[in-house]
Amino acid sequence: MFVILVYDFGERRVAKALKICRKYLTWIQNSVFEGDITEGKFKMLTLELERVMDKDNDSLIIFQFRSKRYSDRLVIGLEKNSLNHII
Amino acid sequence: MFVILVYDFGERRVAKALKICRKYLTWIQNSVFEGDITEGKFKMLTLELERVMDKDNDSLIIFQFRSKRYSDRLVIGLEKNSLNHII
Repeated sequence: MFVILVYDFGERRVAKALKICRKYLTWIQNSVFEGDITEGKFKMLTLELERVMDKDNDSLIIFQFRSKRYSDRLVIGLEKNSLNHII
Repeated sequence: MFVILVYDFGERRVAKALKICRKYLTWIQNSVFEGDITEGKFKMLTLELERVMDKDNDSLIIFQFRSKRYSDRLVIGLEKNSLNHII
């Protein structure tokens, strides 16, 4: 499946979140990752993030798409991580 | 269509971006908005944001989905803007 992950972690935990997400997904903007991932790897990613986050203060939202067939991506301004289109 | 919008603007322009996005979409996390929007309103939103952004330094990514039928949304930790599921 294809996912878009956005997180808002406390300053002391941001570096850990970045390190974990980089193992599974592609960084596209501050606190924003995207990419294709298997169900198994998705479980590992969420488990690792849950271990380092403070659930009372940190926020993690993961949008999951079984298909990119219906999506498009518009980038305006600086493309922080020049990636080809997700379709 | 349904969109997920993420932006990374210079500090002096963040407040303007927030104000503009709030007119069209729902705030769900720092610099992250989502929501259903018409093609017409989408054009107005992107035009307004382009007017306030510094394209050499600011980054705006808008994921567009013609259908939410294939998506799911997992929220872990603090739900900064308690919204029902997007399906």
